[in-house]
Amino acid sequence: MQLNDHTDYGLRILMTLGASTTRRWSARELADLHGLSFTHVQKVVQSLEGANLVDTFRGRGGGVSLALPPSEITIGDVVSKLETHMNLVRCFGPGDSGCALEGGCALAAVLYRARAAFQTELDAVTLEAVINRTPFPASLTG
Amino acid sequence: MQLNDHTDYGLRILMTLGASTTRRWSARELADLHGLSFTHVQKVVQSLEGANLVDTFRGRGGGVSLALPPSEITIGDVVSKLETHMNLVRCFGPGDSGCALEGGCALAAVLYRARAAFQTELDAVTLEAVINRTPFPASLTG
Repeated sequence: MQLNDHTDYGLRILMTLGASTTRRWSARELADLHGLSFTHVQKVVQSLEGANLVDTFRGRGGGVSLALPPSEITIGDVVSKLETHMNLVRCFGPGDSGCALEGGCALAAVLYRARAAFQTELDAVTLEAVINRTPFPASLTG
Repeated sequence: MQLNDHTDYGLRILMTLGASTTRRWSARELADLHGLSFTHVQKVVQSLEGANLVDTFRGRGGGVSLALPPSEITIGDVVSKLETHMNLVRCFGPGDSGCALEGGCALAAVLYRARAAFQTELDAVTLEAVINRTPFPASLTG
């Protein structure tokens, strides 16, 4: 069980933006800082913009910055917006899961409960709280 | 975020075996019942056997059955044994995650906590409890 790389990288980028709210970052700078490909960062930034988590600005002085103060973004928001889906098993998704037990299966309820417990932990923590407890290298805040 | 299909199918197979502990099932029967390929079921059964959750018997009257009573298997056991890994993000895994924040990142602690909350819910429920609350089609218990 893992989060998509897209979410992993999105969280890293949001932490960077949140730790340096007085400046904007280019996709190139974010890619260099995090050792990711430029194209990958562009795609992640697009998703973050689509989720209304960042704003992007063109031209001189342009770049990416948070769309909201880090105190108003929870880790749960980010994960639920960036993950393609949170369907732990096939029967959580749309369409036919092909499962002979679908409908009355008590396992689904157990898995839904586990997923809710996971989400509750993430919803309780803001990006600001995470940033405040993380010692950032100077390269990230400069 | 999702569990591997392998785990999804493993859970379905264990529920089947647990709902009919007086008989053994062939991989072919399990495949037909769950609409899965024979090869896929064979691989899942191999993993279940490797995890000491099922026993397999060859020859006449052979097949697969639970290695333990359903009351002694928790859903958490099954998930943690069948999932390849539970590394939510790259820095949970071995080797270099490439993350500029690795080491002091407070996000990792938040994600570990969410994963623990997920696992705690699954550890609290036995296969027996799930089976007792699931109305099985006659084809599964016959």
